Amino acid sequence: SLPAGLNPRGSIAAPFTPFKDNGDVDFSLIPTHIEYLKRLSVPSLFVNGTTGEGLSLTTQERKKITEAWLDNKAHFEHMIFHIGAGNLRDSQELAAHSESVKVDAIACISPSYFKPQRVEDLVEYMRQVAEAAPNTPFYLYDINFMTQVYLSNPEFLELAQSKIPTLVGIKHSSPELNSLMRCHVMDNEKYQILLGSDDTMLPALSMGITNSVPSCFMAPLHNKIREDFTKGDMKAAQHTQLQCMEIAAIRAKYASGAGLFVASRAMMKMLGCDLGPPRLPLVPMEPSKYQSLEAELRQCGFLDILS
Amino acid sequence: SLPAGLNPRGSIAAPFTPFKDNGDVDFSLIPTHIEYLKRLSVPSLFVNGTTGEGLSLTTQERKKITEAWLDNKAHFEHMIFHIGAGNLRDSQELAAHSESVKVDAIACISPSYFKPQRVEDLVEYMRQVAEAAPNTPFYLYDINFMTQVYLSNPEFLELAQSKIPTLVGIKHSSPELNSLMRCHVMDNEKYQILLGSDDTMLPALSMGITNSVPSCFMAPLHNKIREDFTKGDMKAAQHTQLQCMEIAAIRAKYASGAGLFVASRAMMKMLGCDLGPPRLPLVPMEPSKYQSLEAELRQCGFLDILS
Amino acid sequence: SLPAGLNPRGSIAAPFTPFKDNGDVDFSLIPTHIEYLKRLSVPSLFVNGTTGEGLSLTTQERKKITEAWLDNKAHFEHMIFHIGAGNLRDSQELAAHSESVKVDAIACISPSYFKPQRVEDLVEYMRQVAEAAPNTPFYLYDINFMTQVYLSNPEFLELAQSKIPTLVGIKHSSPELNSLMRCHVMDNEKYQILLGSDDTMLPALSMGITNSVPSCFMAPLHNKIREDFTKGDMKAAQHTQLQCMEIAAIRAKYASGAGLFVASRAMMKMLGCDLGPPRLPLVPMEPSKYQSLEAELRQCGFLDILS
Amino acid sequence: SLPAGLNPRGSIAAPFTPFKDNGDVDFSLIPTHIEYLKRLSVPSLFVNGTTGEGLSLTTQERKKITEAWLDNKAHFEHMIFHIGAGNLRDSQELAAHSESVKVDAIACISPSYFKPQRVEDLVEYMRQVAEAAPNTPFYLYDINFMTQVYLSNPEFLELAQSKIPTLVGIKHSSPELNSLMRCHVMDNEKYQILLGSDDTMLPALSMGITNSVPSCFMAPLHNKIREDFTKGDMKAAQHTQLQCMEIAAIRAKYASGAGLFVASRAMMKMLGCDLGPPRLPLVPMEPSKYQSLEAELRQCGFLDILS
Repeated sequence: SLPAGLNPRGSIAAPFTPFKDNGDVDFSLIPTHIEYLKRLSVPSLFVNGTTGEGLSLTTQERKKITEAWLDNKAHFEHMIFHIGAGNLRDSQELAAHSESVKVDAIACISPSYFKPQRVEDLVEYMRQVAEAAPNTPFYLYDINFMTQVYLSNPEFLELAQSKIPTLVGIKHSSPELNSLMRCHVMDNEKYQILLGSDDTMLPALSMGITNSVPSCFMAPLHNKIREDFTKGDMKAAQHTQLQCMEIAAIRAKYASGAGLFVASRAMMKMLGCDLGPPRLPLVPMEPSKYQSLEAELRQCGFLDILS
Repeated sequence: SLPAGLNPRGSIAAPFTPFKDNGDVDFSLIPTHIEYLKRLSVPSLFVNGTTGEGLSLTTQERKKITEAWLDNKAHFEHMIFHIGAGNLRDSQELAAHSESVKVDAIACISPSYFKPQRVEDLVEYMRQVAEAAPNTPFYLYDINFMTQVYLSNPEFLELAQSKIPTLVGIKHSSPELNSLMRCHVMDNEKYQILLGSDDTMLPALSMGITNSVPSCFMAPLHNKIREDFTKGDMKAAQHTQLQCMEIAAIRAKYASGAGLFVASRAMMKMLGCDLGPPRLPLVPMEPSKYQSLEAELRQCGFLDILS
Repeated sequence: SLPAGLNPRGSIAAPFTPFKDNGDVDFSLIPTHIEYLKRLSVPSLFVNGTTGEGLSLTTQERKKITEAWLDNKAHFEHMIFHIGAGNLRDSQELAAHSESVKVDAIACISPSYFKPQRVEDLVEYMRQVAEAAPNTPFYLYDINFMTQVYLSNPEFLELAQSKIPTLVGIKHSSPELNSLMRCHVMDNEKYQILLGSDDTMLPALSMGITNSVPSCFMAPLHNKIREDFTKGDMKAAQHTQLQCMEIAAIRAKYASGAGLFVASRAMMKMLGCDLGPPRLPLVPMEPSKYQSLEAELRQCGFLDILS
Repeated sequence: SLPAGLNPRGSIAAPFTPFKDNGDVDFSLIPTHIEYLKRLSVPSLFVNGTTGEGLSLTTQERKKITEAWLDNKAHFEHMIFHIGAGNLRDSQELAAHSESVKVDAIACISPSYFKPQRVEDLVEYMRQVAEAAPNTPFYLYDINFMTQVYLSNPEFLELAQSKIPTLVGIKHSSPELNSLMRCHVMDNEKYQILLGSDDTMLPALSMGITNSVPSCFMAPLHNKIREDFTKGDMKAAQHTQLQCMEIAAIRAKYASGAGLFVASRAMMKMLGCDLGPPRLPLVPMEPSKYQSLEAELRQCGFLDILS
């Protein structure tokens, strides 16, 4: 069972970090971002993750961004804060800070320059991070296509359950449904497994998984899929699911790896929400690619997502 | 619409090629294999694919194996024969032979030593293969984790539809549901997309895909998932789907790549159906691994699959 | 020590297989190819390898091509024939044929669709192939960037030496110098290790390795590097080595994987030797890429290689 | 030409960061480390790189470690400090700090969670880092097998030369000799290209490259190879080069990726220099592996490296 007060329903979307042209964080754009998150019917947030370019930020910047979003918590049901950094000590510092400012929950990514070689090493790393926030619900943040860390999540849960008392689940952005489902059912669905893919909401629902952490512009589609699935209208759910897949496939034609998040930032701009460029080493899409992506997305209805 | 007479329902399982200890094909074991396929409620077959070690066989052997299975066609609704070889000319020869012996349908894999660099090159290759069997329904056989050919299946269908008149679908063993679904819906579900993964039957069903080509011991589980899903009993479907996932996950602990098919052969032996060793360069599982795999599979009910 | 009569000196270049536009082998172009091989000062050949698209040929075609080159053996010191196919039985048949027509030596690649999982499995596979030509010197053909088989060559030699009596060496197209050198020194330089990379002749020479199997247009450069190195003129050797590296780097900008061999075929055409298109699934370079590649190669002197 | 005063000769070894069992940096072990570096005839240092687990350290820790090594600069000819962090801002802060404490030179790695997609993006990233230390010689630190960033170093130099006035070279830990050599010769050997591999000193020397940044226990072997090569004693150079290859191959049997650096730390302990465990997510070698590695290394003479 989850700690009292943390029961995210539906989509927990990942916001972007707004930047100025000089690369500084642009706090002045957070209200604009929030306005769009609300228009996109996003109930909860996953802050400072990959979409938020958390790993391109310093610990001081992350603390300030955490506080900036917390100042707006009235707009959202829950906020989960990603506190994983490239190294253990910074992750611990961010975990402690998050607890001090009373966040709902934290999540931590595996380091990826030096990769843990065994599940038990990842567990020990996460145990030491979670220990720095002993009263805050803790999620593992697994996103193997970015970290190239391919360790077993079900094995992680089995080993971690007796060692990390605050463990409540996994933000499962790795695409393997097999792993997702076996984590979901473990110990009578003890853990909360958050689907972190944009384009498998309906397949995941078919297996009993309801929460997702999509790109924020996907949230209304995920919401609709869940509603139609619950009503038993499979045709409608498939129709919307297919639209998610088309959008994801178009984006994948223009970008891979870290580029996906550059494209997603561009897609927010297409919807009217310009949050500035990404931070180096990422750079904005070239104008010709941007226009071509926009043209393809228009055809599949993406630009009407807010209407 | 599919050519008259080809409408596979349910599971189209992939049989093994039986071998003697000296590496020769052991035709004498085909009746035993058929007995087990029937006990596993397998209605249709996909012959000489990866499970059948088709790419370790000579063209002459493949022709004889094709004929041996065709001699038993009364036992099955449909048989699809994989005729793809490592090169174009052998694939054409096998296609022509298959048509001459009047198979239901053929499928062809991409060459993988020399990989096609663009979708149009794959289409042209497949066009020349399909042309050698101009009256036989043709499937693309896509299994990217073996071939390392990662071309887009939806793009393949778009380009191929005007060029390959016999094209009826894809045996989609690549795991990406996004690709599977977009192929499925194309042109009013014009093509038959066969799910080639053991452990995503229910997710695929949620998207309207009903046919699968599982490991043959998975067929009864796929059958049950389809029945329960059709009845609307999602809990039961999830339960069986989970068992598929557990079996697949246990197998994956012991094997990867080509080793998966060695493990599957061992798993048939555990069920009582010993079809001999694989052919070199594959070798049987070491006894200690075999026993350990069997012990884990026993725990999750795999050994009761026939009872 | 090598079997009497096999002592290749210098470059053992890899010829192309000429094709007609309809994909048939074009035997009529072999004399043209030989003329160019002689102009390129190529003393010995490695036939039906990757450059020769051996794995896109049927066994019958490979036999005929073998015989066609053998008919011209007066032009060359030695010819090594690659007899590896995608499967064991075809490889054995080709080995037996090569022995029957009295080739100097054979080489065999690992199968790569089904990959051997352990060095001992590769040894057993090669043992059964070599056994089919019991009087013919045998080389392992290792080219890991094409096969994705990454097994240890020094371990192969250690295990194989007591099992494959005809084993004489390795055509070592995998780029790892560490492996190359450790194989070279084993058992008092018992084995002949043929450098299979275009752009590391001088580094290999520095370690005592003298034979190479380059792209045929690289042969004159490798020859010159060896001469200058032997004379002790390191500056001159470095100068030519650098030209090899520039040519290889330019080619790599335009092609990777199987595309490298498409580019090499195009580069022969630039030198005046048009051997037709590659066979499907490979296709000729697009004209605009061809022209751009030619322009870059002209700048680094590649087009003067024959003058 | 390099800035006055920076002309490293021979080996520039990479020291480890000593840790306590609780994961804290153990500054008290630096004198022990220095004693061993001197016994290993290490003239210069590359501090806080991958061997030093720089990316597992916080910026504060890295500053303190930088200062601790600088306190000992009398023992060494030159010290280059790696100041690259996972993000731009921390890298800039470390660069500025390094300049403020007057280091000889700095080096910066590419970020690897968010990977630069194009060479020009990497150049712009590095430009902004180098700008924070406008009076300090700057090296690119390229180690593609750790970062999975595979951008062209020669293209980097071409683009960067007009943009990064402090650029003096590359610590080239990526193994491709082609890249190494083309960088070395550019603009009349304008840049200093430091060989960052343990096992290709002689091949690099054959191409005119003299500096290396080996694992510190490899330094005496690299020194000897250089001496023998300079004397023209190629046999002796090959003999020592082969020993480097054997040591590297044995280590590679026990470790890959980040594990290589865990094994190297264990190898220092085998020589008598215990610098504590690595920091999480890395963990010490299991005792049985340690013993087995030590036994193999003993056989090839590694344990006599200090005698």
